[in-house]
Amino acid sequence: MIIQLKSDCNAQEKIAIEENLKSNAYKTTFVATQQGEYMVANGSREIDLRAIGKLHGVKDVHYVSDPYQLVSAKWKIAPSEILYGNGEKIGNNNFTLMAGPCAIESEEQIIQTLEHLKKCGIKVMRGGVFKPRSSPYSFRGMGMEGLRIWHQLAKSYNISIITEVMQVSQIAEMYDFIDIFQVGARNTQNFNLLEELGKVDKPVLLKRGISGTIDELLYSAEYIFSAGNERLILCERGIRTFETASRNTLDLNAVPILKEKTHLPVVVDPSHGIGIRSHVETMALASVMAGADGIIYETHPCPEKASSDSQQTLNFDESEKAAANLTSVWNLRKSMLMS
Amino acid sequence: MIIQLKSDCNAQEKIAIEENLKSNAYKTTFVATQQGEYMVANGSREIDLRAIGKLHGVKDVHYVSDPYQLVSAKWKIAPSEILYGNGEKIGNNNFTLMAGPCAIESEEQIIQTLEHLKKCGIKVMRGGVFKPRSSPYSFRGMGMEGLRIWHQLAKSYNISIITEVMQVSQIAEMYDFIDIFQVGARNTQNFNLLEELGKVDKPVLLKRGISGTIDELLYSAEYIFSAGNERLILCERGIRTFETASRNTLDLNAVPILKEKTHLPVVVDPSHGIGIRSHVETMALASVMAGADGIIYETHPCPEKASSDSQQTLNFDESEKAAANLTSVWNLRKSMLMS
Amino acid sequence: MIIQLKSDCNAQEKIAIEENLKSNAYKTTFVATQQGEYMVANGSREIDLRAIGKLHGVKDVHYVSDPYQLVSAKWKIAPSEILYGNGEKIGNNNFTLMAGPCAIESEEQIIQTLEHLKKCGIKVMRGGVFKPRSSPYSFRGMGMEGLRIWHQLAKSYNISIITEVMQVSQIAEMYDFIDIFQVGARNTQNFNLLEELGKVDKPVLLKRGISGTIDELLYSAEYIFSAGNERLILCERGIRTFETASRNTLDLNAVPILKEKTHLPVVVDPSHGIGIRSHVETMALASVMAGADGIIYETHPCPEKASSDSQQTLNFDESEKAAANLTSVWNLRKSMLMS
Amino acid sequence: MIIQLKSDCNAQEKIAIEENLKSNAYKTTFVATQQGEYMVANGSREIDLRAIGKLHGVKDVHYVSDPYQLVSAKWKIAPSEILYGNGEKIGNNNFTLMAGPCAIESEEQIIQTLEHLKKCGIKVMRGGVFKPRSSPYSFRGMGMEGLRIWHQLAKSYNISIITEVMQVSQIAEMYDFIDIFQVGARNTQNFNLLEELGKVDKPVLLKRGISGTIDELLYSAEYIFSAGNERLILCERGIRTFETASRNTLDLNAVPILKEKTHLPVVVDPSHGIGIRSHVETMALASVMAGADGIIYETHPCPEKASSDSQQTLNFDESEKAAANLTSVWNLRKSMLMS
Repeated sequence: MIIQLKSDCNAQEKIAIEENLKSNAYKTTFVATQQGEYMVANGSREIDLRAIGKLHGVKDVHYVSDPYQLVSAKWKIAPSEILYGNGEKIGNNNFTLMAGPCAIESEEQIIQTLEHLKKCGIKVMRGGVFKPRSSPYSFRGMGMEGLRIWHQLAKSYNISIITEVMQVSQIAEMYDFIDIFQVGARNTQNFNLLEELGKVDKPVLLKRGISGTIDELLYSAEYIFSAGNERLILCERGIRTFETASRNTLDLNAVPILKEKTHLPVVVDPSHGIGIRSHVETMALASVMAGADGIIYETHPCPEKASSDSQQTLNFDESEKAAANLTSVWNLRKSMLMS
Repeated sequence: MIIQLKSDCNAQEKIAIEENLKSNAYKTTFVATQQGEYMVANGSREIDLRAIGKLHGVKDVHYVSDPYQLVSAKWKIAPSEILYGNGEKIGNNNFTLMAGPCAIESEEQIIQTLEHLKKCGIKVMRGGVFKPRSSPYSFRGMGMEGLRIWHQLAKSYNISIITEVMQVSQIAEMYDFIDIFQVGARNTQNFNLLEELGKVDKPVLLKRGISGTIDELLYSAEYIFSAGNERLILCERGIRTFETASRNTLDLNAVPILKEKTHLPVVVDPSHGIGIRSHVETMALASVMAGADGIIYETHPCPEKASSDSQQTLNFDESEKAAANLTSVWNLRKSMLMS
Repeated sequence: MIIQLKSDCNAQEKIAIEENLKSNAYKTTFVATQQGEYMVANGSREIDLRAIGKLHGVKDVHYVSDPYQLVSAKWKIAPSEILYGNGEKIGNNNFTLMAGPCAIESEEQIIQTLEHLKKCGIKVMRGGVFKPRSSPYSFRGMGMEGLRIWHQLAKSYNISIITEVMQVSQIAEMYDFIDIFQVGARNTQNFNLLEELGKVDKPVLLKRGISGTIDELLYSAEYIFSAGNERLILCERGIRTFETASRNTLDLNAVPILKEKTHLPVVVDPSHGIGIRSHVETMALASVMAGADGIIYETHPCPEKASSDSQQTLNFDESEKAAANLTSVWNLRKSMLMS
Repeated sequence: MIIQLKSDCNAQEKIAIEENLKSNAYKTTFVATQQGEYMVANGSREIDLRAIGKLHGVKDVHYVSDPYQLVSAKWKIAPSEILYGNGEKIGNNNFTLMAGPCAIESEEQIIQTLEHLKKCGIKVMRGGVFKPRSSPYSFRGMGMEGLRIWHQLAKSYNISIITEVMQVSQIAEMYDFIDIFQVGARNTQNFNLLEELGKVDKPVLLKRGISGTIDELLYSAEYIFSAGNERLILCERGIRTFETASRNTLDLNAVPILKEKTHLPVVVDPSHGIGIRSHVETMALASVMAGADGIIYETHPCPEKASSDSQQTLNFDESEKAAANLTSVWNLRKSMLMS
């Protein structure tokens, strides 16, 4: 159950509401985000919602049958619109492309990529500065040094930055230099990291776990939301199955299912989702038709020389063609939904 | 290695070719289909293709590095066009819709469905008369009696019939009444069934196994082809994974991967692929954008009363809208490929 | 619900029982096995079991909450004992080893294996004469010719034969030459084959499907049982997962779970279950500790030269050691269960 | 390649070794553990090991073909023996039981459990004070307060403590109160956490990821080892598959495979591995027969009232019987290996 509080709800009223719920054997969690204040109440006893609704300080009460609450579309029916950068929007009928290299490698690589994105009208650049790698002996990114250079350059192009944050201590370090925090597939259930990201006033793109269920993804989003950050974007990036012909199995079923279950925007990462360069555009197009609010993919001035993921990274010609086709598919989908 | 034989290649010449290959430690399989005659040779010794090409009776020689041979796109680069019914075509830039109930239930249901398909311009009706069911106590279909009625009616509408064949003895029984044999996901590796279907002069739609790899699907197609039947259609219908939010995990990665590996057409079954009625159209649209040559889906006059699969079956209004949208997406995709 | 019929229950009484159940909206299946006659009734209406129990011809009535009925341990609490060969037993505290090559290859190979089994006190020889192979170009076994030779030889050693049956037409062909029919992992849901094996008076070993659930295995067993054959043995042989370090993932959880759900004996195939020769014995020992009633494994006079599965086949020294250790573990387990 | 350094190898010598390797295009990582100093070198160029071996300060050089190096059994052939607590040992033919509740709940619960462990001769108590939970609204443990009480009590019983560490900041907090750090299945690839645990002089038990491969587990162990901590224990706890009859699929294949690939000890967690109380002992017994060096399982004074995992937790009678049987199986296995 979600109790939305009035903006002028005072401390005494909050205590009264909490007491009332506790007396009904409900466990409460107080949530304050940049958008508003809520009391989330979990319990099994039947309870008269109208009585709660009449308490002082209460704006609205909703019963949500899902185990996750604040991210549920049963509570917030309208799609959420996530603000980032200088007032740009993701979700709620805004189509977003995010592209860039697997890893930030050099000033030259950054500039070339920014030029390319500008040409394509793409407003978010992706790239890793801290890279999670299976082996401790692999290249792990340029770190904060790379991020600072990148930030300087991206600013001059008015292009936003999304990059992966791997641990709590990096949040503060990275904060000034990024526009969207990305949580990678290995950290989808790193609950401490999620909670800390709940305290931040910048959006978070949360990737589905390598073998995470759709419900687990929503639970993880609930962690961030209930800790105070409403600006969430979910990302399908392929799951682990028995099939070895592709790097992962892109689960596009997840797109319409998530869009039904949650009000949060859903983007797709076809680069990791299939892992085969010649098929990345095709899977991106299919993702948009499945209902994705955006696509995040890998592109590099010279994929063959990329320090990682070269087999799934588009060159700029491929990227430009993909971006144009993605927009066509988005437009067709929009017109179909309207008719 | 595939040795294509001339149409006038005589018995003596065939023996000479075979002897030559055997002397090089190659194992040969002679294949005669309605389209031509081939010798498939498997071995590891290096061999001069030009020498084989010069033997009497040999039209052409191809070395195929894949373990499957005749279905490989490395041999036959142009997409195959599969004829069915009265000269209708699947594959090679022809878009095909197949729709109908999970199970054939009554004359009335058949007529209503045929009327609906006619209205939508759909030329193939699907439906089961022999139903594979996990439990021996479930409804297993109307059998040959249902098929005979269906055939009579479908003929008058000039609509083709596709239905599942479950065992060798049914092939001859069903032959006169159907246009396309369907092999279900539980029988993808029923090799005896595959071989017998290789001897038939009607097309076969082969579904991917519930946990079958892409390569296993191609091997199974090779079984049918090498037994003499070139008219094959592959079908992605979802695989079994840990995710329980959907009935299966529709693996749309398989579409571009198959289209690259084989010359055979690929269709998608979104009904089984997601198993949720409200998302079937969405996944069908995504499938076309992923490159599918056609869609096979479940529709019924009254899904709520269907004897099986009611939770994933469209009613006729939903089906009509889906068919129209699918054509729009197909057209967009075609125009994108051409530009 | 299972209604056990008296041995002298006559046709009229059967009809009366059926009518009674139908009037309560129950669907009935009449089952006659070599052990007895049953009526299986499926329905959802609440019904007075005592009233059914009092009908003429009824011996006993049991309500089974599982979807499968006759194979359920909720009905038949005591473990079943399966007779084979000349009165040998599987299950119910009898420990059974079955060993032999992947494929029958030659008279010499058969004799050497029989000698080895005799030395070890192993009473069942496994081996394939019809081999299901992913590729149509692989060796598919010696067929009936091999089986006839094998039968002749095994008889003289008083060792029973278990071999895979792949299709309905082979059942009659093989019947005279084998002691136990084996259904392979690709045919676990080949329902026509299961039904025909239900009409046979020899035991059937049913392997779990490559990605079959435990419940699906029980349903498939119910197919055979309800068609008339009670003599069933279930076999865990590894499932398909994302892990590639082993050929399959041997699911030993399935052993205690099956032993709780069904009265049928459960054996384990560690050769396919792990697929690595040096670990086959270890996994066999673990299987016995997990509660297996027997082990079926691959051994060959010279694994390195075996026509198939050589990487997972024990030589005779390894097999002899394994057989001895397996018996020790079986004895320890028995003593632990008794204490 | 692993270059073992002499204990008196000085800074200058280290630089010389490094330079030599770099000149051969090898990337080096210097590793200092409590046991010794190593240089790990990764490269592809062929190199004369003897020349490296002759450099000043080098004790030994080993070429390891595995991608992981220091944890590989190709380098260190003898099984590692991990010291914990007051000189107790895990691995290298020492059998270890660890038992206790899912979560630490109260002083009373701790005392009852310690009494029980003492009675059974079990020297390590498990229990969670920081609990990773899918939902942010679930009970997340007693935290440091609980750990302090537990530590005080366990000390008086001379029983060691193993508990899960979820984030970097907890390492220092927990250090004084625990004997073995546990890394949970959701954190197996939390690389920052792994690296920090590499700097600690207490042992780490590393659980396999929910859908982690065996190789990924070894890579994660390599992270800790290469950061300086050799005292590692690996733990198989079940993987995520399509099967829903058990909580996870306990992959006992992993035990012999890990024991062959690495010198580190391997323990099994049957509680999470099957998730069904009545089968936990059976799977524990099977695990020992598969080669496990120890078992970690859940027991509680009253499982029905446990705050979490009650469906898979043994009561003390069950636990006592299990512990006795596990020792019998361990003894049988040891005698079999010796014969």
